[in-house]
Amino acid sequence: MNENVVLTPERILEATEDVLRRFGLAKATVVDVARALDVSHGSVYRHFPSKASLREAVAKRWLDRVDVPLREIAEGSGPATARLERWLRALFAAKYKRVCEDPEMFATYLTLARDACAAVKAHKDGLVDQIAHILSDGVKEGAFDVGDVKATARAVFDATIRFHHPAHSEEWCDPATPARIDAVLTLLFKGLEAPRKR
Amino acid sequence: MNENVVLTPERILEATEDVLRRFGLAKATVVDVARALDVSHGSVYRHFPSKASLREAVAKRWLDRVDVPLREIAEGSGPATARLERWLRALFAAKYKRVCEDPEMFATYLTLARDACAAVKAHKDGLVDQIAHILSDGVKEGAFDVGDVKATARAVFDATIRFHHPAHSEEWCDPATPARIDAVLTLLFKGLEAPRKR
Repeated sequence: MNENVVLTPERILEATEDVLRRFGLAKATVVDVARALDVSHGSVYRHFPSKASLREAVAKRWLDRVDVPLREIAEGSGPATARLERWLRALFAAKYKRVCEDPEMFATYLTLARDACAAVKAHKDGLVDQIAHILSDGVKEGAFDVGDVKATARAVFDATIRFHHPAHSEEWCDPATPARIDAVLTLLFKGLEAPRKR
Repeated sequence: MNENVVLTPERILEATEDVLRRFGLAKATVVDVARALDVSHGSVYRHFPSKASLREAVAKRWLDRVDVPLREIAEGSGPATARLERWLRALFAAKYKRVCEDPEMFATYLTLARDACAAVKAHKDGLVDQIAHILSDGVKEGAFDVGDVKATARAVFDATIRFHHPAHSEEWCDPATPARIDAVLTLLFKGLEAPRKR
């Protein structure tokens, strides 16, 4: 056993992803993860005291990978209208890419996420906060006319759910999807925009 | 056997619903339906030549029960803005009522609908046509400013999917749902409305 290499949580999570990819969720065990890292399963349990806590950490890491690049867009500069459109399209593209490029791992993560309710809720709330951040900027700029920023941010999230919620992923490959995204965004941006000054 | 009573498709569908309710989808058979009607199973097959065609007819009947009262609203009179809001809220309420009042039958119908793709597609297209009908009226009235009526009708349907698609039904009981519906409708109606004349 190779107990000399420093065993970080990040290394364990990477190895777990690998093991999940090779064996599938039903068959993967903590012993497989330890074997892949060439350590004892006790070493893995020192970082993740249960299989459930390891699974939750894997789900959280997966959600964070969507979150981080979006946060960069939300907290970036430039006009709020263009930024919100870029943010929404990046969200749809990130979800689409995951489903279409690696449907098996997507199904695995989806099952993990179902048990990691707290992590999923935090993920969704974080995304709504990012939308609220862009909306606030837009109100300051005079581009958006929004009464309740938080409620409207959630409305933007809810109104685009068909294009980012995994329950609808089977419909994303439909060739009509890009036009349907455009139509929803047109309607929403018209709903957000401040009346033009004449 | 009681072969004297006139056996209509409607009577068979009613009996099938009853049988599904009593035995569940997995156990219900055409023989059970025939027994409930006190006829031979051959009599049932004369109207529905296969179990699949009977199942599809049950799914269609279920979808029609949402469709018909909505059509009355869509084709009714009165200002288009109020009519569209009434229509959308009636759609959400109809779906909510089905899930919450009879979750077992809802699950049964959902499984039936999954195999009845053509009937579901026709149902959805019909609902979008009803929205388009109200939008056209609103454009004539000068209340709505809509470029492409058909695409916008689909956008209204897509943007409210969280409140009418069964994939989201588990979230409908959340006490925050009514406020979230209001926030989405506010945004959409602002997106539809024609600029005020000054």
